[in-house]
Amino acid sequence: MAGMLKRVAIMGASGYSGEELVRLLLHHPHADLVAVTSRQSAGQSVAQVFPRFASDPKARALRFTEPDAAALARVADVVFLALPHGVAAEFAVPLLEAGRVVIDLSADFRLRNAATYQEFYAHAHPAPALLPGAVYGLPEVYRAEIARARLIASPGCYPTSILLPLIPLLRSGLVRPGGIIADSMSGVSGAGRKAEVDYLFCECNESLRAYGVPKHRHLSEIEEQLSFAAGQPVVIQFTPHLVPVHRGIHTTLYVAPAEAFHTAEAAADLGRRIADCYASAYANEPFVRVLEGKAMPDTKNVVGTNFLELAWRLDPRTGRLVIVSAEDNLVKGASGQAVQSFNILSGFPETAGLLGHI
Amino acid sequence: MAGMLKRVAIMGASGYSGEELVRLLLHHPHADLVAVTSRQSAGQSVAQVFPRFASDPKARALRFTEPDAAALARVADVVFLALPHGVAAEFAVPLLEAGRVVIDLSADFRLRNAATYQEFYAHAHPAPALLPGAVYGLPEVYRAEIARARLIASPGCYPTSILLPLIPLLRSGLVRPGGIIADSMSGVSGAGRKAEVDYLFCECNESLRAYGVPKHRHLSEIEEQLSFAAGQPVVIQFTPHLVPVHRGIHTTLYVAPAEAFHTAEAAADLGRRIADCYASAYANEPFVRVLEGKAMPDTKNVVGTNFLELAWRLDPRTGRLVIVSAEDNLVKGASGQAVQSFNILSGFPETAGLLGHI
Amino acid sequence: MAGMLKRVAIMGASGYSGEELVRLLLHHPHADLVAVTSRQSAGQSVAQVFPRFASDPKARALRFTEPDAAALARVADVVFLALPHGVAAEFAVPLLEAGRVVIDLSADFRLRNAATYQEFYAHAHPAPALLPGAVYGLPEVYRAEIARARLIASPGCYPTSILLPLIPLLRSGLVRPGGIIADSMSGVSGAGRKAEVDYLFCECNESLRAYGVPKHRHLSEIEEQLSFAAGQPVVIQFTPHLVPVHRGIHTTLYVAPAEAFHTAEAAADLGRRIADCYASAYANEPFVRVLEGKAMPDTKNVVGTNFLELAWRLDPRTGRLVIVSAEDNLVKGASGQAVQSFNILSGFPETAGLLGHI
Amino acid sequence: MAGMLKRVAIMGASGYSGEELVRLLLHHPHADLVAVTSRQSAGQSVAQVFPRFASDPKARALRFTEPDAAALARVADVVFLALPHGVAAEFAVPLLEAGRVVIDLSADFRLRNAATYQEFYAHAHPAPALLPGAVYGLPEVYRAEIARARLIASPGCYPTSILLPLIPLLRSGLVRPGGIIADSMSGVSGAGRKAEVDYLFCECNESLRAYGVPKHRHLSEIEEQLSFAAGQPVVIQFTPHLVPVHRGIHTTLYVAPAEAFHTAEAAADLGRRIADCYASAYANEPFVRVLEGKAMPDTKNVVGTNFLELAWRLDPRTGRLVIVSAEDNLVKGASGQAVQSFNILSGFPETAGLLGHI
Repeated sequence: MAGMLKRVAIMGASGYSGEELVRLLLHHPHADLVAVTSRQSAGQSVAQVFPRFASDPKARALRFTEPDAAALARVADVVFLALPHGVAAEFAVPLLEAGRVVIDLSADFRLRNAATYQEFYAHAHPAPALLPGAVYGLPEVYRAEIARARLIASPGCYPTSILLPLIPLLRSGLVRPGGIIADSMSGVSGAGRKAEVDYLFCECNESLRAYGVPKHRHLSEIEEQLSFAAGQPVVIQFTPHLVPVHRGIHTTLYVAPAEAFHTAEAAADLGRRIADCYASAYANEPFVRVLEGKAMPDTKNVVGTNFLELAWRLDPRTGRLVIVSAEDNLVKGASGQAVQSFNILSGFPETAGLLGHI
Repeated sequence: MAGMLKRVAIMGASGYSGEELVRLLLHHPHADLVAVTSRQSAGQSVAQVFPRFASDPKARALRFTEPDAAALARVADVVFLALPHGVAAEFAVPLLEAGRVVIDLSADFRLRNAATYQEFYAHAHPAPALLPGAVYGLPEVYRAEIARARLIASPGCYPTSILLPLIPLLRSGLVRPGGIIADSMSGVSGAGRKAEVDYLFCECNESLRAYGVPKHRHLSEIEEQLSFAAGQPVVIQFTPHLVPVHRGIHTTLYVAPAEAFHTAEAAADLGRRIADCYASAYANEPFVRVLEGKAMPDTKNVVGTNFLELAWRLDPRTGRLVIVSAEDNLVKGASGQAVQSFNILSGFPETAGLLGHI
Repeated sequence: MAGMLKRVAIMGASGYSGEELVRLLLHHPHADLVAVTSRQSAGQSVAQVFPRFASDPKARALRFTEPDAAALARVADVVFLALPHGVAAEFAVPLLEAGRVVIDLSADFRLRNAATYQEFYAHAHPAPALLPGAVYGLPEVYRAEIARARLIASPGCYPTSILLPLIPLLRSGLVRPGGIIADSMSGVSGAGRKAEVDYLFCECNESLRAYGVPKHRHLSEIEEQLSFAAGQPVVIQFTPHLVPVHRGIHTTLYVAPAEAFHTAEAAADLGRRIADCYASAYANEPFVRVLEGKAMPDTKNVVGTNFLELAWRLDPRTGRLVIVSAEDNLVKGASGQAVQSFNILSGFPETAGLLGHI
Repeated sequence: MAGMLKRVAIMGASGYSGEELVRLLLHHPHADLVAVTSRQSAGQSVAQVFPRFASDPKARALRFTEPDAAALARVADVVFLALPHGVAAEFAVPLLEAGRVVIDLSADFRLRNAATYQEFYAHAHPAPALLPGAVYGLPEVYRAEIARARLIASPGCYPTSILLPLIPLLRSGLVRPGGIIADSMSGVSGAGRKAEVDYLFCECNESLRAYGVPKHRHLSEIEEQLSFAAGQPVVIQFTPHLVPVHRGIHTTLYVAPAEAFHTAEAAADLGRRIADCYASAYANEPFVRVLEGKAMPDTKNVVGTNFLELAWRLDPRTGRLVIVSAEDNLVKGASGQAVQSFNILSGFPETAGLLGHI
């Protein structure tokens, strides 16, 4: 592995997730970024499109090209797709056929069930035959599968912030799968670099608003993954909100413990079991931070990093467990997590290229 | 009433709620702002302390004085208290004894139950004898009582955003009083004009964080009022979040309808009953706006105004009712609502001085 | 005048300046807003397009129509044009021919010199015959001309922040017309409600950038007006910067006094003359505030209002006079100033409808 | 050098510059961060004080101690002082006497002239004997001196943004030393982590304001350094502005070329000489980026990095040269530049630890 280098390419690299992939891969110790594609930026150098990288010799040398799966298949071992859903599948097919590894950041391969895809994305799945072989790229849950995958479906930003806190608790049976509520806030970069009036500075600044109520698309992958963890169908309530920060997702989860806790002793005992459950799930995870004491997650402590932090509180008044998580939607919620999967499937140290930006 | 004028004073006028009261009362058609007090600003004019009002002749002439209940009782008919809890009661007592009307923006008189006050505010109530006579200043619920009150306990910012959406539904029996969750976001002005590191620009900007989990002080008045509405004890889950806007509260509520709706017909029928319930509660209310169609509340549409707007959605997947509300924490959530009570108890038009800032 | 009402219309009312005009005219005591036009919003009510006004009965009743000068000429006495330059002139011609008063917020009639227009706007002036009759709508300078005007060219946002501080000094000969520098910062609403990537939240937040260096279009009207004031051609240096606020322009001006001040006495004497000059120009102006003592302009003290505030300092180290001004680009820099002209030419009190939003 | 490690300590590490030093030194390939001091944080770990570093094993292990120069002298080779001016000198003296290298981020050793210090900082210099030996830590100008220095006076944030664009031009004689104007905007982190009302979120958000007009303290070091470059006394005009971003300084400079350029040829020729001057000064500098074509500096492209970017335009209308620069006030304007000096004087690659955060 030492000195080993994978040739990587990014399709759709001119959006916010694409830019973040460029940032992470330009200096990744085991990646050689050989190609980036973008219809609108073709011909320009990475340094021109992203002035932030203007002093980087590699960014000055590398030019965007038109998207061309065959051409990429010739030069890259691994291709990251930062494309819209529907479009991603179209390019994944030839790349996989050419024997390349594909790490897709879109929603195209996140669901096992093509019917669910159709229900939530309003069109037939473009490549249903690939679904069984795709691995949901949540390393804390599917590390072994990622290690041998050829097609990674990197999770959505909201799902990551919801699944990591809930999966260990559902697997252990400590909480009930019914009645879960996830209330999330997202920074505006989650909407992408789209020229739409809704995301203008003056429309977002000093604005707080819910959207996608009550059926946001991300529910499909959230519920599918929670169902796997619970061993039974899980339906949750999910409300995303748009708030005026650039990056960051903050999620507050409301969950019912499997057993009621009517006494201080029962609460303390349940608390110990929850703490143990998280410790056993995450004590050795490099990118999940379970906060202790009075500390509460704050997006400003994870922005720019691949960390997700979480804290939890039992509420003796309501009998509920309240869990709070924070992540950077563009890193752990998108590009950083994709690079984490890349490290795993390539046999590199899982944190390679992901700890320099703390 | 025409041409009638009440002499009003504000104690603790140098904070954000105080400044907002000054803004609303300086040009109120039926108020003559005769005194403002502030220990730290005593001696300075209103125009000096609040440069925003620097061109206003009245703001240039009016000077802050030291807090002195007896002196205020001599010059004012109505005294607004924008003081910390505990301190407010101290000044309310002599003002009421001198026959003045008191509109208190602190938490001191919001609870009927002194024991609850002690539980949530960690000290004995300073004037429990006044509690039975105090009226909770939520005009949409207690208009008649406000009209004849001498002591108004103006509601908290979070409670207003939660009570107005819930009370009509609980009163009508359309929703269950159990299991309610309120998830709120607040702008930083809610923390007051306090020199604390936590509220510095660099600590709040690009930051999303929950706080007061799971037992925020405002729960006490929220639950007391919801219990009155439901006719039975109500305990709710409430999570406030601090987000980087100056003003505004956005609340998302999760509620269980009293009857399940398993069919489209049942959902449509329940929807009609909810719409009717809100229409009968708020169609004639000057400051509550129930949004129609696809519109969703957005704090930027109510900031600077005394409006609260709300929308609701039935979720057939979870069986829940999701309600969203937005208000300006300093206006409908504090000073505007206090002026609304002032108008009512003075016999002025309820919207007097409150519609000029749309 | 009492009880008098002008029928007014707004063309191009769906942008930020248009929305601000709607806000100011909906409740103007002497204006009846009878029509608003917008190609993209035609058919929708004002309340639908601007949810902020959703509770206003008039905003609910008034619907946007397609732009049609002849139709507007039939129903309105005064028409405000909040249209792009080039387009404004096209509609102004038939409206004026039909005998209507036109208050244009675009650049189309701000210059006396059609050749300058062509130099800065890169196309021939669309209606040069109207230029001699147009009045530059800066009330503090052209009040008498505005009073009898039929066509008002309302000044640009940057020009207002530069002209009001400089014109009295140039007229009095206290400062030299040569070598003036204006360094300005503007909030993002100055760019309009355009769906362009450059003005997305994520591109503007945490961003500080100069643009239009060294020849911004607004130089044309700034220099023309300064030349009139100085009685000789004036060329200035002007650098606008885009900063992450919604509203507000802050300008810092660097000027050379006509006479050097090498001693404390000379400085004190010059200071008195500058103070006198401003006092004589602005002491009775309702919307210009010359700050005293240590106070410095801050956009947050004028946002939402029609005030411009300014302060000045003599620098004995450099021999320069530094002047700082702040205004709301959408109010004193656009729509508020247009309403101020409307008041003047209609014979209404100049502050009518403009003081309610302090 | 390979594998070499310097033991470093930071005094006053709990402010924003201190936090940035911690970030840069925790993972510096040639630094072992052995101690951090802070009166208010003594006893707490770095991970507790800065939750951003909570997952870092070193940050969890390292605890803040009380400031004690003797103790630090025993464990560290190099001590960074992130202390207020006046206080820094007090600790520098014993550390230097103990033979340690001191890199001071305060203003205490930036001036050669103790009288200028007294004029601008309003108290006598606490250790004037050290001034002749101190080196102004601007690597692009004093690289050789830094390499053999024992006491580095790391430049201020505003000075860096002004000196780097101007020094090559003044040295080459291309611009006149007289009449220079520097107009700067700074993010709020420049004010430090101080609990003052002026820097609360609600006081800074949606606020644009000049301060320190006309004699900001940073003028003293700016003018001293410009005078060295010009070979004659230089006095400039400098106006700082506070704007609502977390990090970043943007400076616009107005300069008179030494020779007028009245023709397009003269302008082209002067432009070539300016371009050559900058190329010869900065083409090989790792952290200065001279932008080409239409590109303009934007703080969002340098935030989090040690880069300063600049662009310039000749204005044929005014005969001036306008130069614009952008940097991160906490990195190139403070802690990054201090680490750059540390690298140089330690014989490490100059970019060590400073390129990972592009």
